[in-house]
Amino acid sequence: MTNPRLFSFIGGMRGPWQVIRQQTMKGDPLPTVSYIDVVSEASRVVAPSDGWILQGVTSNERYVTKEEKTALIPLQPSLGRPEATLAAMIPLSKSGNWWSLTQDERRDIFHRSSHNQVGMKALPAIARRLHHCRDLASMEPFDFVTWFEFAPEDEPVFDDLMAKLRASEEWQFVNRDCEIRMRRSASSPG
Amino acid sequence: MTNPRLFSFIGGMRGPWQVIRQQTMKGDPLPTVSYIDVVSEASRVVAPSDGWILQGVTSNERYVTKEEKTALIPLQPSLGRPEATLAAMIPLSKSGNWWSLTQDERRDIFHRSSHNQVGMKALPAIARRLHHCRDLASMEPFDFVTWFEFAPEDEPVFDDLMAKLRASEEWQFVNRDCEIRMRRSASSPG
Repeated sequence: MTNPRLFSFIGGMRGPWQVIRQQTMKGDPLPTVSYIDVVSEASRVVAPSDGWILQGVTSNERYVTKEEKTALIPLQPSLGRPEATLAAMIPLSKSGNWWSLTQDERRDIFHRSSHNQVGMKALPAIARRLHHCRDLASMEPFDFVTWFEFAPEDEPVFDDLMAKLRASEEWQFVNRDCEIRMRRSASSPG
Repeated sequence: MTNPRLFSFIGGMRGPWQVIRQQTMKGDPLPTVSYIDVVSEASRVVAPSDGWILQGVTSNERYVTKEEKTALIPLQPSLGRPEATLAAMIPLSKSGNWWSLTQDERRDIFHRSSHNQVGMKALPAIARRLHHCRDLASMEPFDFVTWFEFAPEDEPVFDDLMAKLRASEEWQFVNRDCEIRMRRSASSPG
């Protein structure tokens, strides 16, 4: 039985999301692909011969406080909004130094980096889903995959969000950051 | 490639740990088995026909603070000490209510329950390794598996540790708790 919180990101020659741009911000690049398909609850997906699969699970909150969550929830849009025809996928890894920090040390860096406040400013424009890859049974190339969806007119909001996060203290612990920008392909429903 | 932090607990008719007692403290029981084998980095282990497999990964600290970690580390014994001929395995799950709490809420309950202080008192007698099962790609029957090893004369320390934890506020969120006590089988090395 597959974890119902498991998502697979299949990069290859087909899928509802057409890749516009792939950009390696840090670390090794991810091979370029033309389309991305996102499949849920499929543990036995096979990577296309000229592509790749990244997998991750959504999980419980790791840093957000009760107060922040209460403020965030009413503003968070869902994925799949018809007007959100652009998407971005950011697979990233953090260093061993990050993972050997205790929770309070990581939380302090997270809060000093204003991760939540920066994220709040992107609401309700940017829909987001975070997937954890580090604690799967398979060794994954990234620690996280975050998936974002937004309308074309909100692209500057997304650009600003990522620029602020990448300039933060938290990002000093990021050692691989590969960004993929997509548009919903014409043949795709919705 | 398998996550190097993955461990499989195989309950069946063979293995270095002979089951002395299986006790369901809360929720559904786990089928009784005679022996437990612990295998690392094996993603494709097959469950014995009359047994089961539980899998989990060791991961980063979730609640311990820097100060607590500094105090804990020099006292923590390793697994595999020759004198530690007894073991206990506690697969457990927490409720949906627990997992929907934010990190600060869970941390406060954890600290109010003196989880770390209670654990500290069991050191250096009790060796412990915590495995996380909830964020694997497969749907696992438990959220955690904790493995303990100790010398026969330290069994009361372990009993006291578990009694204190089970009486804590944190344990009100535990909805399945199956305890397995073992001894190292005579044929086993070490």
